[in-house]
Amino acid sequence: GFQGKVIPIHHKEDEILGFKAYTSIEQVPDSVDLAVIATPTEYVNNILDGLGQNGVRHSIVLSGGFLEAGNQKGQEEMKNIGEKYNMKIMGPNCSGEVVAPDINITHVPWPPRKGGASIISQSGTYAVQPLIAISEKIGLGISKIVSVGNEVNTDLVDFLEAFEEDKDTNCIGIYFEAVRRGKKFIEVVERLNLEKPIVIIPIGQTDAGTRSAKSHTAAITSPGYIIDSICEQTGAVRVKNSIDMLNLLNAFDSLPLPKGNRVGILTMGGGPGTLMSDLLESNDMKVPVLSDELQDKLKPWMPETASTINPIDLTYSDDMQNYLNILPDILLQSDEIDSLIIYGLMGSEYHKNLVNVPDFMKNNSSVQTMKSFGDMMQDFFIAIFDELISYKEKFNKPVILTCYNTRREKFVAYLQDHGIPVYYPEEGIWILIWMWQYSKFIQWKKKADKISG
Amino acid sequence: GFQGKVIPIHHKEDEILGFKAYTSIEQVPDSVDLAVIATPTEYVNNILDGLGQNGVRHSIVLSGGFLEAGNQKGQEEMKNIGEKYNMKIMGPNCSGEVVAPDINITHVPWPPRKGGASIISQSGTYAVQPLIAISEKIGLGISKIVSVGNEVNTDLVDFLEAFEEDKDTNCIGIYFEAVRRGKKFIEVVERLNLEKPIVIIPIGQTDAGTRSAKSHTAAITSPGYIIDSICEQTGAVRVKNSIDMLNLLNAFDSLPLPKGNRVGILTMGGGPGTLMSDLLESNDMKVPVLSDELQDKLKPWMPETASTINPIDLTYSDDMQNYLNILPDILLQSDEIDSLIIYGLMGSEYHKNLVNVPDFMKNNSSVQTMKSFGDMMQDFFIAIFDELISYKEKFNKPVILTCYNTRREKFVAYLQDHGIPVYYPEEGIWILIWMWQYSKFIQWKKKADKISG
Repeated sequence: GFQGKVIPIHHKEDEILGFKAYTSIEQVPDSVDLAVIATPTEYVNNILDGLGQNGVRHSIVLSGGFLEAGNQKGQEEMKNIGEKYNMKIMGPNCSGEVVAPDINITHVPWPPRKGGASIISQSGTYAVQPLIAISEKIGLGISKIVSVGNEVNTDLVDFLEAFEEDKDTNCIGIYFEAVRRGKKFIEVVERLNLEKPIVIIPIGQTDAGTRSAKSHTAAITSPGYIIDSICEQTGAVRVKNSIDMLNLLNAFDSLPLPKGNRVGILTMGGGPGTLMSDLLESNDMKVPVLSDELQDKLKPWMPETASTINPIDLTYSDDMQNYLNILPDILLQSDEIDSLIIYGLMGSEYHKNLVNVPDFMKNNSSVQTMKSFGDMMQDFFIAIFDELISYKEKFNKPVILTCYNTRREKFVAYLQDHGIPVYYPEEGIWILIWMWQYSKFIQWKKKADKISG
Repeated sequence: GFQGKVIPIHHKEDEILGFKAYTSIEQVPDSVDLAVIATPTEYVNNILDGLGQNGVRHSIVLSGGFLEAGNQKGQEEMKNIGEKYNMKIMGPNCSGEVVAPDINITHVPWPPRKGGASIISQSGTYAVQPLIAISEKIGLGISKIVSVGNEVNTDLVDFLEAFEEDKDTNCIGIYFEAVRRGKKFIEVVERLNLEKPIVIIPIGQTDAGTRSAKSHTAAITSPGYIIDSICEQTGAVRVKNSIDMLNLLNAFDSLPLPKGNRVGILTMGGGPGTLMSDLLESNDMKVPVLSDELQDKLKPWMPETASTINPIDLTYSDDMQNYLNILPDILLQSDEIDSLIIYGLMGSEYHKNLVNVPDFMKNNSSVQTMKSFGDMMQDFFIAIFDELISYKEKFNKPVILTCYNTRREKFVAYLQDHGIPVYYPEEGIWILIWMWQYSKFIQWKKKADKISG
């Protein structure tokens, strides 16, 4: 947990959640690094002024009721206070920030796992609500989340520059509504995207969207084609929904980039193998037929009914070591594929449900055997997963697992927490497609810069 | 649970999972309604012949190793046995069937909730694996699932005709790889889709997909444009991934159809409201500005900072009764919207996490108050939900809830199990778009038939 000191200030309570409370900043004996303001609108500027007088130089204003509500005067006054005291203000009308794992100044109490993805959001909701999805399904590792609100004297671009310096940030997601410093924004994204992949989800490109955004953060939204052009020029990846953005950040944070567009599919089911192939080949990716030599290397580890062409379809096998260690090892080692997608684990809930039998069977010895088999599977799986997890580094190629489980299933949480992303089958395909788009752009850009420089 | 009798037959065990086992069908004293065969390939046809001799007229062959593995002779033999005894065979090379809630002849032990969606799958994996997603996130209510395998003497079309008669089936999903009776298929889909919406997800339209499908169920796949034409002609809805199909079936099973394309968005967050508006207005839907009269009716129930235009953005409010009962009631009652999408619940895990505080605070009275508030919320929520659930019938308009939670959160399970679908925000939008596509086709088709008839 957070090791620093938390000091509540309240106009009448003298204790809040066990912390001694003060009635004003003047009474606080310690020097204050950061003030968080959540009061009715009419008190905010007075409080900021008091903070400024007492040497506080960083504030987060959660309170709304400023420009987004037509209160231009209030917001200008706040801007002047910031200038007077050289105080950086995040907000107003924002949802706070997260610095994982210890600081969470938001109203959504889901603790994210510590990781390398940072998010800047011009929507307070999109800054904090996806924390729930992250914790229940996606398992994305977070470094920082900031909700910029009305951007009174710190904006999107400031935080991008901060994340450029930040060693804990590996990739950046932006919920983008409008930009107040367009040229600078493009310049920073263009430079930063070469080192840390940037994923953008634009909000507010239609009549209704624009109307909604205006009452939201007082933003004049930018039409979709502008964001399209920015992404084309800078190589930032544009996605269309929030889950895709979180999934993609997860992949950028965990995996090496694919060096080409050839994908190996290792599957326990023909249907998902076929559908994943379709999606890949309709989107500039290849599921290449493997060479006879490579197929011959795979065959001894697969059932006779299996197909080795690619998708490599085991049809069914309960030898997890062949499935998740030996076959991936052979495939990744070859120079015939650039990334590997694996479909088909069911994990331990599967075995738990298997023994969900009628009462009269409960003491039957076969059921008991199956039950202890289920328990045993846990440890057994972890050994196999640790080996699998090591492959992405060993061969420097992305490895993605797909299945229908959420983090309720322990094996999903284990893999996600150790850097193997786990998605629904078709979700995983889109992640590979976007990663390759990004990788291709970077390869092209570096080559182009070399020629022109 | 299943009330009928289960009789194992095994060549050497005399008891399986507590059931007395026999060594052959001749020894079984009872008459048998359905036989399920899961043995090595070489025994299957002999067993089928024995079953036929002993009067069994329905079999499911899970075993593979027939046409999909190049064993044409074996499959022809099976066909002849079927003809000889007038025996209906499902499979071979299939994953069985589910008749919810009591019969689950598959290897995936997740029990689906009983509902009105039936699925026919030419992929065994897609027949049964999504049961996991259904149970962890989607909450789809299932009537029947059948995996048709190599379709030796029962095919896709037979099951479509069976579901046409089946009173428990409200809508149908098809994992479509190839059709063996094309003309008949189109004829049945065209007729059936007018009464029970059909959702199709085609598998195998690219080189790799075709290759994969061929080794999968020996199917010669149909190119994508053929399925596109079939959907255009019949009004069946084509989707591109398995989660979309399950989500859409969920909506068709639970909700009335939208009569027009005007959507009301009631939200606790500007960002999702804006993004949902964008997606709707980019896809033939409208998020109309509400009339002044309607806005005036909404205002008394909303915070002053809120926006009533549409999206109706409460910014934030903790009055759940206003949010989930009074405002939806006013909106749905009006003739200005055809469907309602609500964003923003966090539920009870939210309050549980809120009190996830450091140890030294545990006995603090404010924390205790918050904790019992969390418990109290459960019952309180249910009363509000029951009212909300009644609206879709009362006003005969679809109501969808969106948030970032899975079924781990009790309120999600409660709503889904009582007929209000719960999706991620952008998922919910696509569901409305597809429902409207279907509804528009049906309206047009009925009008056209009236004129021509």
